[in-house]
Amino acid sequence: MARLIDQFERLPGIGPRTAQRLALHLLNQPQEQIHQFADALLAARTQVGQCQTCFHLSADPECEICRNPERRNGVICVVADSRDLLALERTREFHGRYHVLGGLISPMDGIGPELLRVTELVQRISNEEISEVILALTPSVEGDTTSLYLGRLLKPFCSVSRIAYGLPMGSELEYADEVTLSRALEGRRPV
Amino acid sequence: MARLIDQFERLPGIGPRTAQRLALHLLNQPQEQIHQFADALLAARTQVGQCQTCFHLSADPECEICRNPERRNGVICVVADSRDLLALERTREFHGRYHVLGGLISPMDGIGPELLRVTELVQRISNEEISEVILALTPSVEGDTTSLYLGRLLKPFCSVSRIAYGLPMGSELEYADEVTLSRALEGRRPV
Repeated sequence: MARLIDQFERLPGIGPRTAQRLALHLLNQPQEQIHQFADALLAARTQVGQCQTCFHLSADPECEICRNPERRNGVICVVADSRDLLALERTREFHGRYHVLGGLISPMDGIGPELLRVTELVQRISNEEISEVILALTPSVEGDTTSLYLGRLLKPFCSVSRIAYGLPMGSELEYADEVTLSRALEGRRPV
Repeated sequence: MARLIDQFERLPGIGPRTAQRLALHLLNQPQEQIHQFADALLAARTQVGQCQTCFHLSADPECEICRNPERRNGVICVVADSRDLLALERTREFHGRYHVLGGLISPMDGIGPELLRVTELVQRISNEEISEVILALTPSVEGDTTSLYLGRLLKPFCSVSRIAYGLPMGSELEYADEVTLSRALEGRRPV
C-alpha cells in the first residue's frame, strides 16, 4: 500500500493526501479493473513511441497526422512538445503538418539547439516542399530565443512566421500586464 | 455611522464587512484627515471634467497628454475609457495622442456609434494631420464590432490598425483557450 501511495505521489500535481485517496479508491475496485490499469501503464510505456517524421507521440512509425492525406503539405507548425501540438489541434484551425522540437533553447539549463530536433527540421524542409514554417512557441525568454534562432536558420529556405502575442480573448486592457500590452501595441495589424 | 458604512458599500468591490472596517478606521483618524478626505471627494467631483480634445479625465480644458509638446502628433490611439488609457500609459510604449470613445458599440445594450465620441474623432482626423489610428479595444464582441465600424469609417482618411490579440506573455500554449490560440495562429507575423 505504501509503495502504491509513493508511486502516485511522484506524479505531477499529486500530493500525499490525493495519493492516499487514489490508492484507497483503487483498492476498492474489482481485481479486473486493477489489471486493466496495470496493463494500460505497461502498454503505453512499451508501445507509444515517436513519429519518425514529426516526433509527435505515436504507436506507429508514422503518427496519425503525418499519415492523414487530407492535411495540407507545405506548411509545418513547430511546437516545443506534444502537449502544445494537442492544444493547437483542439482549435481545429491548423490543417498542415507539425514538427515537435522536444523542448526550447535554454542556455541557463544548458539546452542548446543540438539537443533539440533542429537538424531533423532542416532536413524535412530541404526534402519536402515547404512554403511556410509557423513557430508556435510560448511567449517566454526560451520561446523568444528559440524563435529567433530558428527564424535566422530557416529564412533562407522558406517563409517563417510566429504566432501572435497580445491580449487573450475576453480579457480587459485594464488588467493586462505591461509586457503583454506593449507586445499587443507593437504587434498591431492593419484593420 | 450607518450612513457612512452604506456609502462605502456602494463602491465597487466593497462588501458590508470591508465597508464597516473602512468606516471604523476613519472614525479613529484625526478630524483634519476626515476633512481632507471630504474635500478631496468634493473637489474631484466638481473640478475633474473631460479634456475637450481627447475626452480623457482632466481638471483643465485640455488634459496633460494633449498639452504635452513632447508627444507625437499624427498618431491617435483610440480607447474605450480612461482606465484603458491609463493602462496603456503604464507601458510607456506609446508616445502619441489618445481619443477616449466613452464606451463600445453594443447593439444588445442599445449603444450605437451616435452615443460614443465618434463624430469628434472624425473631426479630429479631418482637422489634424493624422497618419495612423490605433484601435486599442478589448477582444470581445463589442470591441470587435467597434473596431470593424471604425475601421470602415476611418480607412478613407488614414491607416487604421488594431492591437494584437494572441497569447499573453508568460502563458503556456497548453493552457490557452481555443479562441485565443486560433487568433494567435491567424494573426501570425513574419519573424
